[in-house]
Amino acid sequence: MSKKPWNVGVIGCGFMGRAHSNAYRKAANFFDLPMQPVLQACCARTATDAAAFAERWGYASFETDWRRLVERKDIDAIDICTPNDTHREIALAAAAAGKAILCEKPLARDAAEGAVMVEAVERAKVANTVWYNYRRIPAVTLAKQLIDQGRLGKVFHYRAQFLQDWTISAELPQGGTGLWRLDKAVAGSGVTGDLLAHCIDTAMWLNGGIDTVTAMTETFVKERKHNLTGKVEKVTIDDACAFLARFQNGSLGLFESTRYARGHKALYTFEINGEHASIRWDLHDLHRLEWFDHKDESVVRGWRSIHVTDREMPYMSRWWVPGLQIGYEHSFVHQVADFVDGLAAGKATAPTFRDAQHTQHVCDAVLKSAGDRQWATVKRG
Amino acid sequence: MSKKPWNVGVIGCGFMGRAHSNAYRKAANFFDLPMQPVLQACCARTATDAAAFAERWGYASFETDWRRLVERKDIDAIDICTPNDTHREIALAAAAAGKAILCEKPLARDAAEGAVMVEAVERAKVANTVWYNYRRIPAVTLAKQLIDQGRLGKVFHYRAQFLQDWTISAELPQGGTGLWRLDKAVAGSGVTGDLLAHCIDTAMWLNGGIDTVTAMTETFVKERKHNLTGKVEKVTIDDACAFLARFQNGSLGLFESTRYARGHKALYTFEINGEHASIRWDLHDLHRLEWFDHKDESVVRGWRSIHVTDREMPYMSRWWVPGLQIGYEHSFVHQVADFVDGLAAGKATAPTFRDAQHTQHVCDAVLKSAGDRQWATVKRG
Amino acid sequence: MSKKPWNVGVIGCGFMGRAHSNAYRKAANFFDLPMQPVLQACCARTATDAAAFAERWGYASFETDWRRLVERKDIDAIDICTPNDTHREIALAAAAAGKAILCEKPLARDAAEGAVMVEAVERAKVANTVWYNYRRIPAVTLAKQLIDQGRLGKVFHYRAQFLQDWTISAELPQGGTGLWRLDKAVAGSGVTGDLLAHCIDTAMWLNGGIDTVTAMTETFVKERKHNLTGKVEKVTIDDACAFLARFQNGSLGLFESTRYARGHKALYTFEINGEHASIRWDLHDLHRLEWFDHKDESVVRGWRSIHVTDREMPYMSRWWVPGLQIGYEHSFVHQVADFVDGLAAGKATAPTFRDAQHTQHVCDAVLKSAGDRQWATVKRG
Amino acid sequence: MSKKPWNVGVIGCGFMGRAHSNAYRKAANFFDLPMQPVLQACCARTATDAAAFAERWGYASFETDWRRLVERKDIDAIDICTPNDTHREIALAAAAAGKAILCEKPLARDAAEGAVMVEAVERAKVANTVWYNYRRIPAVTLAKQLIDQGRLGKVFHYRAQFLQDWTISAELPQGGTGLWRLDKAVAGSGVTGDLLAHCIDTAMWLNGGIDTVTAMTETFVKERKHNLTGKVEKVTIDDACAFLARFQNGSLGLFESTRYARGHKALYTFEINGEHASIRWDLHDLHRLEWFDHKDESVVRGWRSIHVTDREMPYMSRWWVPGLQIGYEHSFVHQVADFVDGLAAGKATAPTFRDAQHTQHVCDAVLKSAGDRQWATVKRG
Repeated sequence: MSKKPWNVGVIGCGFMGRAHSNAYRKAANFFDLPMQPVLQACCARTATDAAAFAERWGYASFETDWRRLVERKDIDAIDICTPNDTHREIALAAAAAGKAILCEKPLARDAAEGAVMVEAVERAKVANTVWYNYRRIPAVTLAKQLIDQGRLGKVFHYRAQFLQDWTISAELPQGGTGLWRLDKAVAGSGVTGDLLAHCIDTAMWLNGGIDTVTAMTETFVKERKHNLTGKVEKVTIDDACAFLARFQNGSLGLFESTRYARGHKALYTFEINGEHASIRWDLHDLHRLEWFDHKDESVVRGWRSIHVTDREMPYMSRWWVPGLQIGYEHSFVHQVADFVDGLAAGKATAPTFRDAQHTQHVCDAVLKSAGDRQWATVKRG
Repeated sequence: MSKKPWNVGVIGCGFMGRAHSNAYRKAANFFDLPMQPVLQACCARTATDAAAFAERWGYASFETDWRRLVERKDIDAIDICTPNDTHREIALAAAAAGKAILCEKPLARDAAEGAVMVEAVERAKVANTVWYNYRRIPAVTLAKQLIDQGRLGKVFHYRAQFLQDWTISAELPQGGTGLWRLDKAVAGSGVTGDLLAHCIDTAMWLNGGIDTVTAMTETFVKERKHNLTGKVEKVTIDDACAFLARFQNGSLGLFESTRYARGHKALYTFEINGEHASIRWDLHDLHRLEWFDHKDESVVRGWRSIHVTDREMPYMSRWWVPGLQIGYEHSFVHQVADFVDGLAAGKATAPTFRDAQHTQHVCDAVLKSAGDRQWATVKRG
Repeated sequence: MSKKPWNVGVIGCGFMGRAHSNAYRKAANFFDLPMQPVLQACCARTATDAAAFAERWGYASFETDWRRLVERKDIDAIDICTPNDTHREIALAAAAAGKAILCEKPLARDAAEGAVMVEAVERAKVANTVWYNYRRIPAVTLAKQLIDQGRLGKVFHYRAQFLQDWTISAELPQGGTGLWRLDKAVAGSGVTGDLLAHCIDTAMWLNGGIDTVTAMTETFVKERKHNLTGKVEKVTIDDACAFLARFQNGSLGLFESTRYARGHKALYTFEINGEHASIRWDLHDLHRLEWFDHKDESVVRGWRSIHVTDREMPYMSRWWVPGLQIGYEHSFVHQVADFVDGLAAGKATAPTFRDAQHTQHVCDAVLKSAGDRQWATVKRG
Repeated sequence: MSKKPWNVGVIGCGFMGRAHSNAYRKAANFFDLPMQPVLQACCARTATDAAAFAERWGYASFETDWRRLVERKDIDAIDICTPNDTHREIALAAAAAGKAILCEKPLARDAAEGAVMVEAVERAKVANTVWYNYRRIPAVTLAKQLIDQGRLGKVFHYRAQFLQDWTISAELPQGGTGLWRLDKAVAGSGVTGDLLAHCIDTAMWLNGGIDTVTAMTETFVKERKHNLTGKVEKVTIDDACAFLARFQNGSLGLFESTRYARGHKALYTFEINGEHASIRWDLHDLHRLEWFDHKDESVVRGWRSIHVTDREMPYMSRWWVPGLQIGYEHSFVHQVADFVDGLAAGKATAPTFRDAQHTQHVCDAVLKSAGDRQWATVKRG
């Protein structure tokens, strides 16, 4: 290998551990990177799991104690793929050890935790990013470019939703492996931190900051068996959350997320209406962007369905040929490629911990508003 | 003509006057009605307009003073197609004259006006209905039937939007013919009474009453020339309105309307997510209903696009053959047919003034909440 | 009534009798016509049927012998809505009587019959048209305008299909009321004359003449009970037909029709691919036109879905407001309006009998090719 | 590495070389394979290209002479990713060397070449497959399963198209790197072997053999500069090809391919209409399958859009979670996984060379028919 290696240590070998491992393995096949990502070590709680994961993905080694991994000299970057309640502690240790940090979203369970993390990485001056991966789906990146070119004019409306249906059954337990997203102590919140956080991250990237919100939340199934205690316990996460928002640019926002929308698996959509043009996107058909431009001649004016696969589309010159889709996993590959490019260039790769902290503040305001039944003002910084 | 005539007097010869005239003319061609609707008289402010309208549509006579029309012995029913600020006065006179009344939506500018109207028609015991015509688009009626059959199970979410883009230009004046919808004194409100009223009517028909709301409104263009005064005046209607709602059945509601959604002409959509099944509809393709049923076998489960044109579909046995669409205007024909059937059977035809008054109460609560920046409770009755 | 009346006599009170009656009744409500269409007489085989139809639609009189109707002095135009085997005889009589003639499609059972009819109307110099109504769906008319403006450049491909599924059951009888389309003696052919005739008419209107074809036909259900004889008899129509074609402009054609395409009720679609742009249309969503223009900027290039409801769209300024659909029946209203305008202006209204005869020649070549298993050359004139 | 290695040698480092390399690298990450695919060697014509490719993809070694690669003892399988005119020679050498062979499609330039290849691999008894990768897109595999379960009943119609638009410009040269698909000597044919071969492979897999065809081809741009000679030369490939077919099961087929369909990049679609149900698929949205089942209750009957991402879908339990798409490249990963499974189990993995030879026979018949302007019978065996 002629390139300088970039040694990654991944903590957490679940769903996100797989998605990130795949991204590290593929990035240099498709992108011309200044350094070669190397799967140096993975970490799981048991040696059996860690060894199996290392074998499957080709990690050079494994650990069962994340603190040991963080301390290893042969590791350049720590990737945090563990449940939300561990993000802070790992990030603080990794920052102290001078490692670059890639942290799964949401940054933390709440803004208080997030603030400590931001402070730690900035003081340690380590490169840092949060895996709000949807920014790097080509159609979403294209939306950003079109907006930045000023094609929309004044923006009037932003709406987003993230709809799932996997927790409708009251038989589903809460807590434990694969189900910690239903356990507030671990997750911090329900759909707000898990799903709306994505919507908010994209929204503020595309449309700027949010000033105020009014929200409602609901927990449809009030009690579920807890997998760790074996007892039926009160459910304390939000099953569904909707909120109205006012953006700093004067536009109105409408956000909704739920895990009780029968028929939708991971339907993340957004739509932006501007003075001149409008944009829509839908994760269920992530390779398309819908575009309406009022400047089109009136008799042929209509919503365009852009099949975002041509070579001039963001990231797409690195993949196949026009007409051939990439999928979900490629958003992670793009984030690895951008992060490694950023490292080599000495530039931060958005979203940084600080960027992600803005989303934490919105989430906190949303949950506060839902609790108070009052409009809430989003904290800055 | 062998059937008993049913003589209609239509007040207002604008857009809705046309839509209703067309409906009266067609209803007996396609439906087997117990009485024959007769276009007995129309009424416009000038003789020129009234005469031209009468000639075009085949009215037997015309008037220029609605009070004269209301008093005519040869008129069985009064149809109110005039701007919102006249509904109350005409309805009261028509009720006093013992006429059946068909009133364009919204019932009134606010619930206070509406209450007087409900009281008048109920005291006079005259048949009455409000033209919330979208209930009678076959796909929407089908949605109602599917819900009433219990196919959705417990409902979790209801969302609706009515998006237009015709007032984005700041050059558009307010007030006067064709533009009274921008004049609060005439219209009562902006999108809330004009567009959200449709969404709310359908929502409560399909999903039951609404308890509480939190809303925001915005007026994007603050001043416009007023067509009647010729001066630039403050715009006082709501250009956009969004609200969160809690339904009596425990489901969460999300509603939005605007005239600033570039690319949407009359995009009225709703979606309902239930425990077992979900439904979506879209006025821009009004002949389709989207249906997802979790009870479908898993490998072939997906959203179905039902082309609501088969003979077993609501109203469709009266029209053409499977595959051939009807359009917007047919919803009015259906309402005429149902109303005449109801008259002959001595039954009320929903939505009555009382039904429509529920919508007025929600609109009032929405506007109050937007003003107060507080959750508002919807008044009953 | 201040306008000159135009007295129509309609022969045949079935599906098409209804569609045309509705069109005559509505045309002057929505279009500013130089003459007023009057439903002067209808004709059915029994007095019961004719009287009921007259009452329902408001005909001034009725007949049970079409020859009497054709001879009446108070009739200006004869509308032929009867099965195909009667078109020639009625048209010849009507031409001899000097009446304008509106004939349902296809013009005739074959080109030999058609030739006589063309000769008759041209010799008699009577106005004549054939109800290839799909030309006048606004989206289809828009397609014609875009093509005539040269926006497609050189055309490479034309493809059309008309798919139905109503004859899959072997239990369905052939022949008799409502089922004469399965009886070759009456219909002339199966899907070729019934459905492909529409596709061919549109194709030649949009893309010019067809030179040669190679075709295949199939009769999937070989025997059916005949409703008139009561016996099981061989089915002699074509259940399905597909053909390849070469157009005079050098483009390639692909046509298919069947009544055995499960899931499609009346799916008439066409697509045209030109050097610069492409067009698609689909009868199941007849109010939309799909448009792709290669001259669009590459990052926002995509198929546009044009909601053909704005006022600048063909015919649409006469109907409702942007966003509100019209349907199938309106294509007939447009044909009436254009025909009456043409009459007053002394101009032929396409498609005339001669235009429709071109379609007969293509149908004959298609059926000949399917029989011979050879390419066939389309006859001219 | 605990698994037995399976050493692959890839010949050709272009588009398909990349697609296959990616597949070999990923297969064992996502599938539990009995052997571990190892990128043992790649081969390109120049050492520079071969070395760069080896570095990028992690090949252990490289060659510049494919004969050397074929002879290497450390190679278990030869993957042929070179232009069509080299398939036969490489395959014969690889078979003689006893290697398993994975050959890019089409198998050969024509059936005569293919016959020799089939004979060679069968005599040598080496495992062999052809990369008709679209069979292994989950939605397409699902279609196969639904058909094999008998859900369609008797099949009436099969139609497929593969539409592109990349050769419309007359400025595009023919021949040379990246453009050999326009050079008949290298490619064998134009769209017939390149695109229709895919359609035919899928069609016969899903719907059985084809008996007879009638076809037409066209070359729209008659002359192009040849990249190798530098001269303007006659274009001898087919730019477009369409054919009608009769399947052995009595159903009718309609096939079309072109590189002149403006607006379509790689629009491969198929639709099958059966007595009870119909299926549609579209490569531009490859993660969806459209399904219509007449046995659905009539009021909720409609085309279903199945988002083929749930765990019970073919291959999908190995990837992400419901709602998250995979893309084009994954079809190759699936073919590697199936081939390695087959090897270990001693079973052939379809499509074998013999399977692919059936497609060659259809292609030959199509081109013969287009040349003769006659129906052609497809050769067997």
